[in-house]
Amino acid sequence: MASTKTGAQGGRRRPTVADVAREAGVSVATAGRALGDYGRVGDALRDQVRAAAARLDYSPNGVARSMRSGGTRTIGFVGVDISNPYFATAMRGICDVARKEGYEAILANSDDRLDIERAAVKVLLEKQIEGIVVAPNAVIDVGHLQRAQELGVPVVLLDRHSGVLDADSVVIDNEAAAREAVSHLLRLGHRRIGMLLCVDPSESPELLRRAGTGRLEVHGAARPSIDRIRGYVAAMDQYGAPTAAELIRYTVVGEAAHLEREAEALLDLPEPPTAVFAADNVATQGLFTAVRGRGLGIPDDISMVGFDDLDWTTLVDPPLTVVAQSPMDMGRIAAERLFARIKGDDSPGERIILPTELIVRSSAAGRDAVHTV
Amino acid sequence: MASTKTGAQGGRRRPTVADVAREAGVSVATAGRALGDYGRVGDALRDQVRAAAARLDYSPNGVARSMRSGGTRTIGFVGVDISNPYFATAMRGICDVARKEGYEAILANSDDRLDIERAAVKVLLEKQIEGIVVAPNAVIDVGHLQRAQELGVPVVLLDRHSGVLDADSVVIDNEAAAREAVSHLLRLGHRRIGMLLCVDPSESPELLRRAGTGRLEVHGAARPSIDRIRGYVAAMDQYGAPTAAELIRYTVVGEAAHLEREAEALLDLPEPPTAVFAADNVATQGLFTAVRGRGLGIPDDISMVGFDDLDWTTLVDPPLTVVAQSPMDMGRIAAERLFARIKGDDSPGERIILPTELIVRSSAAGRDAVHTV
Repeated sequence: MASTKTGAQGGRRRPTVADVAREAGVSVATAGRALGDYGRVGDALRDQVRAAAARLDYSPNGVARSMRSGGTRTIGFVGVDISNPYFATAMRGICDVARKEGYEAILANSDDRLDIERAAVKVLLEKQIEGIVVAPNAVIDVGHLQRAQELGVPVVLLDRHSGVLDADSVVIDNEAAAREAVSHLLRLGHRRIGMLLCVDPSESPELLRRAGTGRLEVHGAARPSIDRIRGYVAAMDQYGAPTAAELIRYTVVGEAAHLEREAEALLDLPEPPTAVFAADNVATQGLFTAVRGRGLGIPDDISMVGFDDLDWTTLVDPPLTVVAQSPMDMGRIAAERLFARIKGDDSPGERIILPTELIVRSSAAGRDAVHTV
Repeated sequence: MASTKTGAQGGRRRPTVADVAREAGVSVATAGRALGDYGRVGDALRDQVRAAAARLDYSPNGVARSMRSGGTRTIGFVGVDISNPYFATAMRGICDVARKEGYEAILANSDDRLDIERAAVKVLLEKQIEGIVVAPNAVIDVGHLQRAQELGVPVVLLDRHSGVLDADSVVIDNEAAAREAVSHLLRLGHRRIGMLLCVDPSESPELLRRAGTGRLEVHGAARPSIDRIRGYVAAMDQYGAPTAAELIRYTVVGEAAHLEREAEALLDLPEPPTAVFAADNVATQGLFTAVRGRGLGIPDDISMVGFDDLDWTTLVDPPLTVVAQSPMDMGRIAAERLFARIKGDDSPGERIILPTELIVRSSAAGRDAVHTV
């Protein structure tokens, strides 16, 4: 190992932007901008940062990093669960880019648990990986990721954005995607629309009825599940469809059997929904199974829109209308951003929003065609 | 890094069983047995091996390995493609065991290419991983895996066994599994049964008509695809059903679209089969899509048995009769064997055969119920 390697093991390591920021008494983002000469920092502040860089003998990472030969040429991917096709496909995208760069990827599964994610990041840093792609379990409690950055190990977020971490994130617009899916059902004439999804145990949503208007308010940090609920509520509000907490069923365990039970609870409501938006791939499977288990016809008895364009959604009868995203592209672009950072790109973190597409197949039909369940 | 670490980088490394074997002029398996005192080696040979071990200052790996603190605590998994649920689930099993042992796993996708597998193993050795689980592309051309063993890095084979490598393998009995699936169709009265599968480009099967009996002979190294063809032929022979090369369709590209075209070729035969055995999960999807695309009813127009109990096989209508295996168990057990080896188990390589199960659902029906297509 080259003695100049950055890493978690301490010793003599090359000063990083984080070191310069600390020395200059500014934020990492400011230090990055000042050193990168992006022009959004005042002259005095830029001089202050550059003086700190000179004191620490800091050299921009770009050349130094790309020239160093002692690196481990290994990156880490902390996903939730590799047996979920979403993360398996994202991993494939990450591996493809890594191989092109001459790197390999270590995988860790966090199982939706922040403590496991923290431990995994710690281990990856001990292994002196050169960068981390992570689908973070928390978007506020990100100290372990900041610590990686301070050690000079770039972090790119997959699937979730954090407002408190100066890092690239590769996401979709979850609120807009949900809004489009629910609007599709509303345009077909549905007004009593259920929603089914997994949420993260660490940051469950709060659903409050607003005094006065009687509309539902969604509280919780910006994360895919909560943003999708926001999109559902926004669409319902826009069309004047009544919202109710009883129509939004979720579970913190991401297994189809649990979602199936929640779907049954929706179907068992005194006044069941005429359509349901299943807002992730596990919920889509749970809903489909529950509806079929009850002997209900799709879309004759109940309409549905799912999430994620997995193979099986076109193999079933009827093929499902779904919101499609590309985890392969998300993995690939996250890895590309990570290698740009490894090569020294010190510009401020960027939120990269990839497109989603509502693929209309045959699982949602006009309200007129819907029988009373 | 501890200077006593084994690894590909040369330098002073601890002598391995392979070194002792070379010094003693015996096979690695013999050296392992002699050093492990398993009693299946003659006294003279045992003395010869032990003398060689003494000359090299060899110490059994067990204690030395488990005590060494300088290891990378990293293993490698070379699978074919992580976006295939079979390998994603196996990876999950490997990761679970690795985490329990305090290790992490690096993933490499070989994409059914031996050259990529070889390069991946080389890179893993350079990274000083402590063991490798590999789903090998070749079962004879395994020099790169022997090289890993010679460097003291244990290798466990997943999904395939190699007769020329003294290593543990975790497999299913592919021939018996296929035989059971095809026998199920034969017992239902089918006699003209097609077979659809992916084969490995490096070692495609040879199908020869035997002079005299007119029966089909299958040539090729023992590997899942070829063993499954053997099982198909054995079942057909047992029931006196005529075999013909035109009924066995395969592709070397493991994509559903390619298998779908091969399935269509089966359906387009002048005398099409009344039942088809799809012998892997990609073929199962390709066959199902092709049959439905032709507007044929399952099992009314054509019966089918698939392979791998993926979620979607129970979501479609009708739910499919399939051969089920457990890639999660295969990954877990392969990793457990690997850690036993890392901890010093030098016993001869073992072939561990995990059970498969024919899950009878509704996609295969009696011949009487089958209309002429």
